Amino acid sequence: MPLSQLSILAPGLLGGSVARAARERGAALRIVIWARRPEVRAALAKQPWCDAVVDTPEAAAEAAALVVIAAPVNSIAPLARQIAPSLPAGAIVTDVGSVKGEIVRQGHSALRGRAHFVGSHPMAGSEKSGWEHGTANLFERRTCFVTPLAETDPRAVETVAGFWRELGAEVVSVDPATHDRIVAHISHLPQALASALSAFLAGKDPAWRGYAGGGLRDTTRIAAGDPWLWRTILEQNREEVLGALAGLKGELEAFESALSRREWADRTARLARAKDFREGFR
Amino acid sequence: MPLSQLSILAPGLLGGSVARAARERGAALRIVIWARRPEVRAALAKQPWCDAVVDTPEAAAEAAALVVIAAPVNSIAPLARQIAPSLPAGAIVTDVGSVKGEIVRQGHSALRGRAHFVGSHPMAGSEKSGWEHGTANLFERRTCFVTPLAETDPRAVETVAGFWRELGAEVVSVDPATHDRIVAHISHLPQALASALSAFLAGKDPAWRGYAGGGLRDTTRIAAGDPWLWRTILEQNREEVLGALAGLKGELEAFESALSRREWADRTARLARAKDFREGFR
Repeated sequence: MPLSQLSILAPGLLGGSVARAARERGAALRIVIWARRPEVRAALAKQPWCDAVVDTPEAAAEAAALVVIAAPVNSIAPLARQIAPSLPAGAIVTDVGSVKGEIVRQGHSALRGRAHFVGSHPMAGSEKSGWEHGTANLFERRTCFVTPLAETDPRAVETVAGFWRELGAEVVSVDPATHDRIVAHISHLPQALASALSAFLAGKDPAWRGYAGGGLRDTTRIAAGDPWLWRTILEQNREEVLGALAGLKGELEAFESALSRREWADRTARLARAKDFREGFR
Repeated sequence: MPLSQLSILAPGLLGGSVARAARERGAALRIVIWARRPEVRAALAKQPWCDAVVDTPEAAAEAAALVVIAAPVNSIAPLARQIAPSLPAGAIVTDVGSVKGEIVRQGHSALRGRAHFVGSHPMAGSEKSGWEHGTANLFERRTCFVTPLAETDPRAVETVAGFWRELGAEVVSVDPATHDRIVAHISHLPQALASALSAFLAGKDPAWRGYAGGGLRDTTRIAAGDPWLWRTILEQNREEVLGALAGLKGELEAFESALSRREWADRTARLARAKDFREGFR
């Protein structure tokens, strides 16, 4: 059954994709959007997947069955606090932030006794940002984490999980701390490596970049992501990212030591292990 | 003017692409191929871009104007030594190996006084290997390094450079040591990082891999390359790869330290520098 009203706050690439996908799949009867900047609100008002644009987060919350907070990670909990008094009783609020621990704890306590906060994190995106780059199929066959606390209302969790499934995602439910550990490894660590490699090579002869084949191109693609967004993500998932970095450094040091000592058998075995892992991608 | 005879030894992905591209662009009147395994020779004999298959490297060398040794890096110099007595006087031999210092030195001395060795390295490839995956457009708009020694005959260098240009490549001429330093940074280091990341994550919960978005997928793509081929490349470019790894480790440690001390301004500046570098790719 479609939601009576889906409200999206501060849409970027992900929020813009949620709106398009929800419209295309009939997941909500009415889609209401709030954006911070007046010129963005004016542009959104002309989109076929937007039924109404409102001037405040509170106005977007008023008649919402589900609110998706699509703001950067450091603005999600503040927005949840801001809209809490305006939400209908029993409404559900979710988000699309890349880190969950702090956001879910704060979101839950902001809405407690009135509405439900259920954290989400769709593993979809692009090095591009901005609502205008959103697409209706961004979530198709992608993992979407849903991260309830032990005390989160199970029906609210099921509503959020069902919403993401309707948008095409494959839902994985884990607690926020486990989520943060997983993404530190499979998302934030690759980002850190791609950025470190790019920043390192930026200090070398500028001509070198022009010589590169597809390998360097792919390995560094995500380094073109928004530095400020990534800074806030790393800030919130600092402990887990430091842990993942330490593990990766251990692997690099083993690599270096094998190369240095000419221990080729070990090196080939590690390369083969890496190949097996990579080929197992679905 | 097309070459009278182009001979290709031990074609894999690159050698198979050289043959297809040379046929399509009319770069040689006759294309002769030798492969080590009889079943590969039988399959090659049926290809429209192969005029003759021969049973020995010597037979392929006999009437060649240009020989392309497409074997793995550790077999290139031995093959050059093997064919040296069979080459017509003044013939040119090149290769497609990813490391140049040792190969060019040995190739030059193997042919000295009889024929010319000019090292090449087209920056094209794929995580796939095998001549059957070759394509006629693999070299289009890709850099191809040509790496003469100070004593290499300039006309031979120009013939090899012209051949690669005819196949669509953009030729960059550098000495072998400079080449090896460049590719240690823009090719071997990304390979080492992709493999280290894959090998590290291979030790984690196997379910995690299924959750990954496009970021991890791209960052690790080249880790699916042939471990044995990569081992021989790392072996030959050991010193330069160790130097590049040390530099990258410094960058990672600066990253770790900034994250650990919450020095966000510095971190954001480094991420921005990485973004600028990545966006400057042609």
